[in-house]
Amino acid sequence: MTITEILPSLGHLLHERFDGACWPSTASADEHGDLIVGGLGLTGLAARYGTPCLVLDEAQVRARVREFRAALPDAELAYAGKALLCKGLVRWLAEEGASFDVCSAGELHLVRAAGVDGSRILVHDNGKTKEDLKAAVHCPGARIVLDSFEELDTLEGIAGPGQQVLVRVTPDVDAHTHRSIATGVRGAKFGFDLRAGEAAEAVDRVLRSPNLELLGLHCHIGSQVSGVDSYEAAVRFMVGLLADIRERFGVCLPVLDIGGGFRVRYTEEEPEFDLTGFADRVRIALHYECDRFQLPAPRLILEPGRSIVARAGVTVYRVLAVKGSTVIVDGGMSDNPRPALYGARYRMRLLGRRSSAATVPLTVAGRHCESGDVLGEAVPLPADTRAGDLLAVACTGAYHVPLQSNYNLIGRPPLLAVRDGAARVLLRREGERDLMARDLG
Amino acid sequence: MTITEILPSLGHLLHERFDGACWPSTASADEHGDLIVGGLGLTGLAARYGTPCLVLDEAQVRARVREFRAALPDAELAYAGKALLCKGLVRWLAEEGASFDVCSAGELHLVRAAGVDGSRILVHDNGKTKEDLKAAVHCPGARIVLDSFEELDTLEGIAGPGQQVLVRVTPDVDAHTHRSIATGVRGAKFGFDLRAGEAAEAVDRVLRSPNLELLGLHCHIGSQVSGVDSYEAAVRFMVGLLADIRERFGVCLPVLDIGGGFRVRYTEEEPEFDLTGFADRVRIALHYECDRFQLPAPRLILEPGRSIVARAGVTVYRVLAVKGSTVIVDGGMSDNPRPALYGARYRMRLLGRRSSAATVPLTVAGRHCESGDVLGEAVPLPADTRAGDLLAVACTGAYHVPLQSNYNLIGRPPLLAVRDGAARVLLRREGERDLMARDLG
Repeated sequence: MTITEILPSLGHLLHERFDGACWPSTASADEHGDLIVGGLGLTGLAARYGTPCLVLDEAQVRARVREFRAALPDAELAYAGKALLCKGLVRWLAEEGASFDVCSAGELHLVRAAGVDGSRILVHDNGKTKEDLKAAVHCPGARIVLDSFEELDTLEGIAGPGQQVLVRVTPDVDAHTHRSIATGVRGAKFGFDLRAGEAAEAVDRVLRSPNLELLGLHCHIGSQVSGVDSYEAAVRFMVGLLADIRERFGVCLPVLDIGGGFRVRYTEEEPEFDLTGFADRVRIALHYECDRFQLPAPRLILEPGRSIVARAGVTVYRVLAVKGSTVIVDGGMSDNPRPALYGARYRMRLLGRRSSAATVPLTVAGRHCESGDVLGEAVPLPADTRAGDLLAVACTGAYHVPLQSNYNLIGRPPLLAVRDGAARVLLRREGERDLMARDLG
Repeated sequence: MTITEILPSLGHLLHERFDGACWPSTASADEHGDLIVGGLGLTGLAARYGTPCLVLDEAQVRARVREFRAALPDAELAYAGKALLCKGLVRWLAEEGASFDVCSAGELHLVRAAGVDGSRILVHDNGKTKEDLKAAVHCPGARIVLDSFEELDTLEGIAGPGQQVLVRVTPDVDAHTHRSIATGVRGAKFGFDLRAGEAAEAVDRVLRSPNLELLGLHCHIGSQVSGVDSYEAAVRFMVGLLADIRERFGVCLPVLDIGGGFRVRYTEEEPEFDLTGFADRVRIALHYECDRFQLPAPRLILEPGRSIVARAGVTVYRVLAVKGSTVIVDGGMSDNPRPALYGARYRMRLLGRRSSAATVPLTVAGRHCESGDVLGEAVPLPADTRAGDLLAVACTGAYHVPLQSNYNLIGRPPLLAVRDGAARVLLRREGERDLMARDLG
């Protein structure tokens, strides 16, 4: 008999302390080695909803929005929906005062379906189709971030009076990030090029366009950016551009959108993004530069996506087999293609074992018929890891659901919200009927 | 007035000749620079079905199955469904005499729904769940390829009398391929290890299991394998193993499955797989080794997937914008993640231009809000490529549909069959209702 069986109320005091760097802030381990998130044990959730499943900690999401809003209270926080989007999540974020950055008519419609007002929507994307632009124009109050002259041509043909737009520029700030997620350097596929004079031409055309109202400029320096100096440099650069625009066109633009890309730690070894330092340096740079140019300070827009939801997500797999030093789980690159796409690494934890149990480095492989379907190498796991065990993977809230496939015709896992001991299905598991719905035979 | 307007019947004679290495064998270019596949112009298909769309040439698929069957007429050809699976395709393949290799209950159910008899189904996968094994057991005649002792444990608990199985082994043949698609070397996640004695133990257990009937052995040496010597080495090795089994257990196994992995050319620079040379060397090696050991020659099973369907597929995109040397199209890593996953390269062609038009090296980028969403670099395309143009991408029939996602909440494109001037929708385009079907709000 254990002490918690004698005195159940002591249970939570015996919960193992977490370093907390990569797991949701509500996470703890109980005396059986189960992981508790949002007041619920992952073992019980796996039994009830099956595996694999993705658990999303509502408290963690809300707390992260509050941290951003507290750090820069005057800024507009536009959640980047491409990281994770479903109606339940949109409602939490809207309640916390966020607005939304969407990248397609599909994302726009989902956010609208969750009850968000058009005035809280920014429509992005480097390649908007005519259908995307029409959806944006038909959403009253939605702001459109222009990315190319072709979009401007199309928009001028369909926009009604007072259509608010921002112009996206490429600020030539190198954020020292992975090549595939660097977006701020020249020659990238995003925005109007500055040196070629395209950005000034776009601004000129928007200002002379009878139905378009230029709100401001947009830039985005990259993804998984840890250095706050890159953001500071971007702000300095963009304020200089706003000053150029006033000089050249006689207008003071009221909005400056500096994008997102704030780094998230997937493992303890990675640097943490310094949100307070970021906010301080951005605020000081903004006001210093605006004073220098005698410009009224524009309202900032930030677009965090990953940094709001990544750490709130925990994926639970069941171990199917162990072959030598390879642990095979019942999911893989269909539900998490990030290791295969980006070489992403994750913190993992076997449930039902104390963390004091001796570990050995094991490979965690997925169930897909492809050698590259490996979720982690040299993952420290108990030496007695065996079929039937549950494996939790941290920091899986961002860019998992959107990138999921039906590889090997396996249905995508459910997304479960947990909060204060209650669970709710946000996205149900994909079943056989879903998998065949588009097959016309 | 052009000569084909005066004499329309001359049109097909003026069609440009194709090198044919990467495009479907029915492809030709007409005098306007349109690409004709299965007797239909891609420009007309794009107008009718929208873009992006994936066009599959039925004649090319059928011809490729016939080539394989003619090369090794005594072998069983089991199409590897993970490359591309839908009911229409399954029917073509079944009509051509193929059987099917499936990797999940979902793939099994789809093949069954297309009317395929269980005796023509092989159930694979390195990580079969209990549900997968149950589905296999409930499909009369289906053969199960065992991959681990855990699967054997489960199967012994649920299999009825006469359940046919093969044992997958890892033959330690290095096929000199990309690390992420190499499957035949030891330490991989597939099959039973030979040196550790696991394969012999698995064979012994199956032979002693009252409900299981051991048909033979299975191996798979990798993916995109061009060297036929690797297959020859695998056959020699596996026959030696069959001889060992006869010696040790007194049984002659009637089946030898040597997997798939036959190379496909995505660009002209890549080597072509020598199917005739492969067939000759495999046949000779099989009979030589069997004679040497005085074994009756087992029936071979081959499992081509990519090599049946890759070249039959052509994807058509519309150009949304051109920024400097970057062409942005209306699809990207959601419909084709292979460049991001494997650094895959493709042959591309702008429609509506003669191939004699001067070209410049351009980057073809997708529409997704991610810098890594690039479909090709330094692609030779006409210098006047502009918004509205259609771009065809060759060799997109395999591992496109199965790996597709809804990134940025964009619906997956339709899969269209073309044959003798007629088109038919195999998979319809995914719409907004599909995208929200799992969202419980």
